[in-house]
Formats: sequence, structure tokens, C-alpha cells
Amino acid sequence: MSPTSELSLHPDRLLPAEPGVRSTARALYESVKDLPIISPHGHVPPQWLAEDIPFSDPTSLLITPDHYVNRMLHARGVELSALGVAQDTMTEQQSRDAFRILCSHWGAYRGTHVRYWLDDQLAGIFGVKVRPSAETADQIYDQIATCLTSPEFKPRALYEKFKIEVLATTDDPCDDLSAHQFLRDDETWQGRVIPTFRPDKYLELAQPSWNADVDRLAEVSDIDTGDYDGYIAAMENRRQYFKDNGAVSSDHSHLDARTDLLEVAEAERIYASARKGEASEVEATALRRHLVSEMARMACDDGLVMTLHPGVRRNHHLATFEKYGADVGTDIPVQMEFTDALRPMLMRYGTHPNFQLVIFTIDETVYSREIGPLAGFYPSVYVGVPWWFIDAPEAIRRFRAAITETAGFDKSSGFIDDTRAFCSIPARHDMSRRLDAGFVAHLVVEHRLAEDEAMDVMHDLVVTCPRRAFKL
Amino acid sequence: MSPTSELSLHPDRLLPAEPGVRSTARALYESVKDLPIISPHGHVPPQWLAEDIPFSDPTSLLITPDHYVNRMLHARGVELSALGVAQDTMTEQQSRDAFRILCSHWGAYRGTHVRYWLDDQLAGIFGVKVRPSAETADQIYDQIATCLTSPEFKPRALYEKFKIEVLATTDDPCDDLSAHQFLRDDETWQGRVIPTFRPDKYLELAQPSWNADVDRLAEVSDIDTGDYDGYIAAMENRRQYFKDNGAVSSDHSHLDARTDLLEVAEAERIYASARKGEASEVEATALRRHLVSEMARMACDDGLVMTLHPGVRRNHHLATFEKYGADVGTDIPVQMEFTDALRPMLMRYGTHPNFQLVIFTIDETVYSREIGPLAGFYPSVYVGVPWWFIDAPEAIRRFRAAITETAGFDKSSGFIDDTRAFCSIPARHDMSRRLDAGFVAHLVVEHRLAEDEAMDVMHDLVVTCPRRAFKL
Amino acid sequence: MSPTSELSLHPDRLLPAEPGVRSTARALYESVKDLPIISPHGHVPPQWLAEDIPFSDPTSLLITPDHYVNRMLHARGVELSALGVAQDTMTEQQSRDAFRILCSHWGAYRGTHVRYWLDDQLAGIFGVKVRPSAETADQIYDQIATCLTSPEFKPRALYEKFKIEVLATTDDPCDDLSAHQFLRDDETWQGRVIPTFRPDKYLELAQPSWNADVDRLAEVSDIDTGDYDGYIAAMENRRQYFKDNGAVSSDHSHLDARTDLLEVAEAERIYASARKGEASEVEATALRRHLVSEMARMACDDGLVMTLHPGVRRNHHLATFEKYGADVGTDIPVQMEFTDALRPMLMRYGTHPNFQLVIFTIDETVYSREIGPLAGFYPSVYVGVPWWFIDAPEAIRRFRAAITETAGFDKSSGFIDDTRAFCSIPARHDMSRRLDAGFVAHLVVEHRLAEDEAMDVMHDLVVTCPRRAFKL
Repeated sequence: MSPTSELSLHPDRLLPAEPGVRSTARALYESVKDLPIISPHGHVPPQWLAEDIPFSDPTSLLITPDHYVNRMLHARGVELSALGVAQDTMTEQQSRDAFRILCSHWGAYRGTHVRYWLDDQLAGIFGVKVRPSAETADQIYDQIATCLTSPEFKPRALYEKFKIEVLATTDDPCDDLSAHQFLRDDETWQGRVIPTFRPDKYLELAQPSWNADVDRLAEVSDIDTGDYDGYIAAMENRRQYFKDNGAVSSDHSHLDARTDLLEVAEAERIYASARKGEASEVEATALRRHLVSEMARMACDDGLVMTLHPGVRRNHHLATFEKYGADVGTDIPVQMEFTDALRPMLMRYGTHPNFQLVIFTIDETVYSREIGPLAGFYPSVYVGVPWWFIDAPEAIRRFRAAITETAGFDKSSGFIDDTRAFCSIPARHDMSRRLDAGFVAHLVVEHRLAEDEAMDVMHDLVVTCPRRAFKL
Repeated sequence: MSPTSELSLHPDRLLPAEPGVRSTARALYESVKDLPIISPHGHVPPQWLAEDIPFSDPTSLLITPDHYVNRMLHARGVELSALGVAQDTMTEQQSRDAFRILCSHWGAYRGTHVRYWLDDQLAGIFGVKVRPSAETADQIYDQIATCLTSPEFKPRALYEKFKIEVLATTDDPCDDLSAHQFLRDDETWQGRVIPTFRPDKYLELAQPSWNADVDRLAEVSDIDTGDYDGYIAAMENRRQYFKDNGAVSSDHSHLDARTDLLEVAEAERIYASARKGEASEVEATALRRHLVSEMARMACDDGLVMTLHPGVRRNHHLATFEKYGADVGTDIPVQMEFTDALRPMLMRYGTHPNFQLVIFTIDETVYSREIGPLAGFYPSVYVGVPWWFIDAPEAIRRFRAAITETAGFDKSSGFIDDTRAFCSIPARHDMSRRLDAGFVAHLVVEHRLAEDEAMDVMHDLVVTCPRRAFKL
Repeated sequence: MSPTSELSLHPDRLLPAEPGVRSTARALYESVKDLPIISPHGHVPPQWLAEDIPFSDPTSLLITPDHYVNRMLHARGVELSALGVAQDTMTEQQSRDAFRILCSHWGAYRGTHVRYWLDDQLAGIFGVKVRPSAETADQIYDQIATCLTSPEFKPRALYEKFKIEVLATTDDPCDDLSAHQFLRDDETWQGRVIPTFRPDKYLELAQPSWNADVDRLAEVSDIDTGDYDGYIAAMENRRQYFKDNGAVSSDHSHLDARTDLLEVAEAERIYASARKGEASEVEATALRRHLVSEMARMACDDGLVMTLHPGVRRNHHLATFEKYGADVGTDIPVQMEFTDALRPMLMRYGTHPNFQLVIFTIDETVYSREIGPLAGFYPSVYVGVPWWFIDAPEAIRRFRAAITETAGFDKSSGFIDDTRAFCSIPARHDMSRRLDAGFVAHLVVEHRLAEDEAMDVMHDLVVTCPRRAFKL
């Protein structure tokens, strides 16, 4: 960092402080820093790339869709509406005002990964050279807005500039994947954008929309979902449709990770009851856990990798959800348990040659206690890298220190950006490469790993691990 | 540290080992080391300052009232009675013997924060230059005893010497706060000693003393506590009395953090039942959780900050409690859960502009998983710094690394000494400043924060954070 | 580490990276590195030393019996049978093939403690100078096999070479301890091999083998175990037998750590019911918890130290257990709770002068929250060092940082290797000494501990702590 009110990116940022370790880390980082980005799990809308429409303004690009940014402002008393969340298209003045709110609260982000990513985006992508503040807000806004009018800042141009090799989106099972098909068939487009099968709401039988959702599932699959067998067949049908359209994984995010199996007759009974709107909460939860196991059974057949992102109390502040909808920063993690929760599923499918399971968590306590031991025994189990709140430097360092000794490097998933903030993708992957270089450098300097092995590990983490874990 | 058997305080103690980081940390520490102490939560009896009576002897100053010191000796086979716990006034010989026990077990404290604080007090306040041991015990005892006869070691003189700006005590709702009033009205006294409303025992309906306590509440508030409405009104009355006498916060320390609300009729029913001594344990717990939420409702009205110190199994070894009473070192932490526990209260009051909640924990696992995410969304929620067992260097470092990325610096409470060991207050705050300087220096050296921002952060942590979190 | 494909042990391995800390750590490590090994808890069969039969081949020495090694290969798709697990004696070709599998997967162990220990054994004991790989597998195999034919690689010679002072085994209460007696009476043998009383299966009333086990207990103790009183008397009898044969501790490894006491009549009733094969799972668990408390009562009488190794879901993948038996790498830890679980036992026996309890855990979250506070109050409670999955460098560093501040160094158990991999014993103890030297050096460099005290701490951790915790 440089003098007050300048913004610049130091080439050694995030590398360990001790000069010997830093020097080793720098060499390791240099060896991978220019490699393409593999992004096997994220939330960028595929339409952005299919349509390649320019981003409209700095606020709707950098602030409004990014709950990482918004929640921190909300915690300082800013209304989400002032940031454009769940509002109609903002006027330029509204957009400019929102941007000034962010810049005025710049100090709130000190020490956070959000600040680190924003620095990286502002300076690295848009060439901003002044530190954000109430005073500099308009100047920075104008600079970014000007950029956005240029063809080199259109989505496809950025995709290439970011050196993205593959980008996975997250999609509803009923989605026709037309955007993905459009991209696949577009001869002017060289990228790879693949869908991910995300069936959560079809497994949550107690949700008010469930019956309508399952009706729609019948419609798109052309399979009657009136009974349990039909539902299962429809799911299998849509998984295959996703696979045919490039999907490599399904993703599952429920409150807990349990996978208890029901007798088929009981599953049929609860399903029928839920279709009549008569299933209790307890029954609905029981069937959801069974259905997660069923997804693993299907994965053994169709080969889609299964990823779990459990353990979040969604919409913790109900009034905020009612006003602004989901995914606006009011989700709070809960404690997790995997050892017993996953046992029914792993007892059945844990050694199946076609099954792969990547476990993500926001509860760090399970890394050394549960996920490391599971991935260190089951050939099917892979360790997901830190997700969401803990996709941050100090947490990622803790993660590597907690997981490597019990699972090794090669059973980790490679970095996952998991974001809808398109411009933050390179900053996130670069952060991960720097942190891993620092961790691996420690092993070298402490004579636990030879230098040539360390170089191999870096390449594996950036290239081989995501390809292996996601069958890419 | 210096040669065997000397005691001295190194100016760089606790600063990070790496020379570059240490140098940056030193500059950051220097910028705040002489700032006044803000102590918004602690347990010093206000009478000490009101009456300004000299401390009687080294043991009753440094050992007897400090369960941090005593528990470590008990764990090595020393009877608490030998340290003066729950005994009549000690003779000089008894006091001297107790002091020799401490000095003889000096090695037991190696690597602990208690040792760090004792070093700081002995060398920094009393000018002791030899390391405690069986051989040096009498010499050190005499040196401290001599100090205590001097006017500059009387409580008020020490208060000034320690540069305390504000000191909060912890007080029973029925306390008349006469010591606080005496200090406020004393024109020879420039300090600020404020009470804290601590109503725990009035919320624990299953405690044998509860009915008598609530009778007494009626007496001092002059409001009939015969029914639930009266109880609530009496509580509101006493909170206002505390506020009128300078209180800025209420403090709550129950086994769990749950805040489930009851229907008013059910609350009334359980209250009436408890007044007859007929409430079950389950009912008593249910009403306690409801009453904690009620305290939040009152806080929205009267503006007292709410602080939580939950998660301790009190008096774990019952025989010790029966012999020596509470707060003698036999409290053991339990695992905590905040996300769901606080949800009923935060759904109601979490975005109320008048509400502020500071969450403390001894279970470190909740920092990155629950408290950070809560404080990073709710404008009302602040992160309490490590408390009790974990108010120690390594734990405080883990805390900053765990919380900063999700909540930022400015949503933390500032340091809380939480002690009845008056002479340890400066050592504890100085420790915190050194540790924070080390943490912030790391961010600078890793180019994650500019130097001017780092200076700002240090000032905020020492001055702005406690003022903001406690409305001082 | 040195150039590609060489294998060598750097003298500074595992010492902290920062040169100042490393230099201090080196001096601390040097002061203890040649001290004898005290191994108060492990799984080496005493017959190996009694019979002193040469180890047959590299695979059955280094791979087959070591589930740390095997599980990592299984996680990469290797069948356990290919490593000799639960197979008849391997042919030389099978043994050689298994060894090549390990060498071919050498990269999987990067960053793990298993790799660290294997390096240490290969280079330090067998003089291997090339890095394992598919290409070098045969060469290394031959080199080790040649060593094993030499008298200096027989078990007793290695025991002496490793400078083992005392080695505890783990034994069934019905074991006649003849191997221990043989060693005791052998005048050509100077070592000390002591048994450990491990009665788990006799406390698990729901296990199918329980009734037969308890019959056998009656037989060897010559006490009728037809009723509860007889069972208790038989247990006391066998504990005494173990004590008479050199045992200093009993070891207990159940799923949870609960110690709830039953009324004697209820214990008698459940026992009688279990003897008829009619006790429910719930009753069996209740009696098991009661019996753990009973073991503490017996310990107050006979003085055997009690060690706990709870919190593991055994045989997580049932099909693997059915095919290969127990202890083959498919045990997965679960979350632990000690504060309330141990309370009934500690309320009764926690301050008994004859009682000592050493608590081990794989769930790291309990160190600062529960075990540290317990050991920092109860004279009977000692902190077990990291066990199993977390007996690894980064985890051990976290352990020292988590536990020292609340319990001090002198209430920790000293290092426990807990292994059946005989040749890994020196590597494990040496690792521990290096890591502790690094931790203590940090305290010195941060001026929290004087150098002479640091030297004392190192000596205590290696010599005094295991002797004190295990009454050796």
C-alpha cells in the first residue's frame, strides 16, 4: 500500500511477511498466476455472456447484486433499497448516490476480503488510482462508467480478458438452458459456460411453492409427477438433460447434511401426502433427506458430481426477506455435522467408482474433525474449499492448515469463486493462488516439501484439482 | 526477558517476531499506548473508589479476589482456603504464606496470560525486579506491602495513574448505587465510574432465592411484583434508575443465549406459578428466555446497550461451590449456539435504531460462523472481544483473524477487561493494544491496508469502538 | 529438502521459518533431542519385543498395520487387500507390489504428517537416499529388506536404538500379560514394557460378543460375573492384576464421554437384563456411562491413571468393516462435549488425591473451551496431546496455542505416539520436540518467557510431564 488516498496493487500482496518465505511464495505464485481460470461453481447468469449486453453502470455491476458488499453497508445502517436491492432500474442519480454510499463507508471494509476484491477490481480492471471516499466517489464512478461504454468491457471481452477456461452457472432443473445452448452453438464464441443442476426447491416439500414447482417439473420433463416414481423419473430425466447440455455437477444446499434413507413405501406415502398439501414439517424433512441420498444414487448412474453447500439459516431476518427477497445478506450459518449425517449415503455409495461428492462448509470446525477424515478414507469424497463468509485470506489459511494433514492436497476441490459478481472472479482466483503459494512456501521453508514438489502442488491446485473433483 | 531470576518488561513484548512486522507493529502500538483506558465492562467494586481506603496487603489485592490466579493453583493441589478465598481477614502470616504459595508455583503460569499480567503488575506498578520464587517471595511481599502504605497506591491515585477515563461496574438491580452517587457528587473526584444493570438472578425463576429477590425488587422499585406486569414494570423502573445514575448497558449471563418469546398469557401463567414456588425447571427456563427478549424490548425504549456473556456451566464442582461460594474458578464453558438462539429477538429488534447488542463468547467456534455474520448484517449487533478464559494473547490473535473478515474492525466492541483485579486493568488493556498492533501490522506488511489506515484502525479500536458499542 | 528425487532430512525441519525464532527453537530442540523416549500410550504388540523375531518385509512393517498410511491410499482408489490388510501372509511379490503402490502414490502424502514420518523412517532408520516413486520402489524395497535381515534391525535392537525408556502397550483385561512377564523376567532385556488396562468391550453391553466376553472375564478372574457385584469385583481383580504386572493406566474409548451415575439397583437391573441378552440400546448406553464412572472410583483405590480417547464413529463404512475388520482407516471423528459429560464423575472424584484423568480428543474445538478450563481447575485433570488425525504439525501447533493459556504447560500429558507402527515412534516423538521447541521459542522471542524458563519447559514436556501425568 502506498501514501494516503492512492490506490494501487502491490505485486507481493497477501504473500507471507517473512522475507524467506515470501521469496519462495513469490516463485510459486509466479508459476501459476497466469494460468486460465477454472470456475466449476458460480452464479453468473449465462444470459450475460449469451447476449453480451454492456453492463449499464458501476452500481448495478459492483454493488447491487453483491450481498457481500451490501450486508456490510446494511450493518452500518444503510437501507438495502438505497443500494438498488430489489428496486426498479436505478436512475443515474440513484446509481451515483449508491456508489457514494459505498465510497463513504470505505473504512468499514478494512481488513475484509471484500475490500481486497474491490481494490483488485477497481485498480486492476478499471484502472482507478485514487482511494474511494465521499470526495472521490464521483470521479471513480465516472471512470468506471466510461469504461463500461467501451467494447472491451462487454461481458464476453471480460471473459477473455479474465482468461476464464470454463465457467459453471447454477440453474433450475426446469430451465431450458437456452442461453447455454446459444453459447454452445455460437461460432463466434470460444468460451465454455456449463450449467449446474440445482434442485433444492424441488426437495423442500414444506415450501409453499413446492406443488407448483413439481407440476412444472412434470411439464418440462413430460413425465407425470403425480406419484413418487414419476417424480424420481422426472428428476432423472432433467439431470440427463443437464448432462446433455454440458453439466458436470448437481448442487445441494439444505439446512443440514443428513441423508437418512426411507423405505420406498414410506417415501411414496409422504410424497403423496405432500402432493395433497398434507405432509407435516417432520415428514417433509424426512423425505428431503431421503431424496438427497437418491440424488447420490442417480449420480452413480449418470456420473454428475454431487456438491453440498449446507448449513445456512436462510433469511434470518424475516422482515428483510419480505421486503427484499432472498440472497440479500441475511443468511447466517449454523453449526454442522457431517460424520453421522452423510453415513447412510456413504455406506451405500461411498466406494462406488462413478460417485464423487464435494463437501463445502461455512462451519470451520468440521475441516479437521470430519471432512478431512472422510476425504482421507472415501475415494468418492473431495474437500470443498472455503465458501461464502470464509472465502477470505485468514480463513483460507486456516483451511489449508486444517485439512491438508488429514486429506492431502489432491483431495481438495481447487478454488471455487461461487459468485454472481462477475468482475470479482479474477480477484478471487488470484487471491487463492497467492494464499496457496504462501501455505506451500511454508512447507518448503520448514523442509517438509521439496521445491519441485511445491511447484507440482501449485499446478495441481490450480489445474488438476478442479478438473479431477468436477470431472472436467 | 533477561537473565535468570530478573524480572523486567521488554518494550517489544507481544509484538510479532518477524522484524519487519514488529517494526510496523511498534509504530502502531506507540500511537495508542498512552491513550486513556475506556473500561465499559468490569467488576471492580465502586466502594473502593468511593471510600479510597488503601489496599491492605499484597495477597488480598493480587491473589484472593482473582480466580484466574487461584484456579491455576487449585489445579496444582493448593486448597483455595490457603489463598484466602472465602476466609475471614487473613493475618499477616497467612497473607505472606499465600503469597509464597503463588511465588513457589511461578512455573505453573509459564505461557499463560495470567503470568503476563502478573509480570506487568509486579514490575510495572510495584517496581519488582526479581522473579518470584519461594526464595524471593518475602522480599517481593515486603516491597508491595510498603508500596501499599503510600498515598500514591490508594485506589483513586491508581485510577489516575492508570489513566482510566471511564470504569463500568456490575451491579444488582436492587443496588441503590450510593457509591456511584457519592463519586458523582464528590467534587474532589474527576473520574467516571458508571453502573451496569445485571439482572440475571431475577430472571432465573428456578433459583431458590428467586422469590425473595423479586420481593426485594418490589421493595426498592415500590412496584408490586405479585404478577408478571408488576415484575416487568419494576424492571423497567430499575433500568431507568440505573440509567439516571449513569448506566449505559445491561449485562446478561445465562447458560444459553435463547430468546424465544412466549405468548403474554403463558408468561403470566408461568410467572404466577413461580411466585407460588410451583414452576417446573422447563417452565422457568422458558420464561427466562422470554424475559431476555423482553430486556431487548426495554432497551429499544430506554437505550441501554445489551451485552450477553452466556455459555458457562457455573459451579461445575459442587463441593467447591458449597465450601467457597461462586466465582472461585470452578465455572467451565459449554458449547454455544447464537444463530437460532438470538433469532426471535433479532427478528423483532435487530434493526431497531435504538437497539445495540454486544455478543461475548468463550466458545471460539462461533466467531467466524455466527457472530461475525450476525454483526456483518444487523446494524444492532456488535462483536464482543474475547472474554474470560480466552482473553489471552493467542486467543485474541485467533479472534481478530476469525472475526475481522466477516464483520470488519468497526463492529467490534473495543477491549473489555471484565475484571475485579483492579491492578491488572492497565496490563490487560496494554496487552490488547500490543496484540491489535501486531494483527494490523500484518495487514500492512501483506499490503492489505495502507499505513495511514492502519493508524486509524488502531485509534478506532482503542477509542471509537468502545464508545460506539457502549454509547459512551 | 534437496534436489528432485533425493531424500534427505534437514536438521532444521519443522522449526519456524523466521530466522530469529528458528535460532532460538534450534537451541531449545538441541537441549532435548537426545533424551530417551517415554511412550506411555501405544499399540505395539509386546510379543514383538518378547520374541524378538525379525520383521519379515518392508510392507508388513511399514504399510499393512498402519491405517494412517492405508486410508490415504484407499482414498485414491486402492483396495485395502492390495496392501495386505486382513490377508494371509503375503508372498514376496505381493509385498513388493504393495510397496510399489505406496511409492507410486507418494505425491498424495505431500503436506501430511504421514509423509513426514515416512521420510524420517526411510532416511533416518533405513538410510534410503532416493525419493519414493514407481521407479525407485524396488530399489527402496530391497534396501529395507536387506536391513531387516540384520540383527541390528530386530525389535529389541531397534528399541535400544530408538532410546525408548518405557513403552506402554494396550491390552485386554483378560490378557494374561505373559509377554510382559517374560520381558520382566528376562535378564538379557533392559527395557520397560508395561501393559495398559483397556476394558472397552466389557462396558459395551449392546455388543453381540459382550456376554461371552464377560464369561471369559469370570474365568480369568475366577469371580462369578453372573451379577453386577461380581462383574465389578472381577474388574477390580483384573485391574489389580494389571497393576501388579506394571500397568500405570487404564484407557477408555467410547463414542461419548458421559459419566452419568445410576442408582446401584438400576445398574444391577440393567446388568442382569444384559446378561439375559435383553437390555435395550438405551439401557446398555446408560450402564456403560455409569461403568466409566465406576472405573474412576476404582482408580481412586488402585491409583491407575484413567485416560479417555472418546469421540470416534467406528467402522463408518460398514462394508469395509465387514470385509477387513476394525482399525483399517474407516473410523471418523464426531463432535465432542466434555464439560457436562464428565461432571458427574468429576463432582465425585475430581479432587480425590489418588485420581488422575488424561483427556484426549480429536475434536479440536474443546481444547480452549472445555479441556483447558477443566485442567486449569481440577487437580486430577490432565490435558492429553493431540491424538490420531490431529497428531500432525499444524494441529499440534494449534493445540499448544489453544491449551497453554488456560492450563499451562505442566498440566499437559507429554507426547503420546499411540501407534502400532513401531518404526514411526522416534519420528513422532522427534516431531513433537521440534514443534514444542518452535512454540516455546515464539514465547521467548516475544518476551513472554525467559530463556532459562524455556529450557525448563522443554525438559518438562519431554520428561516431567509424561512421568507426572502417568505416574511413571
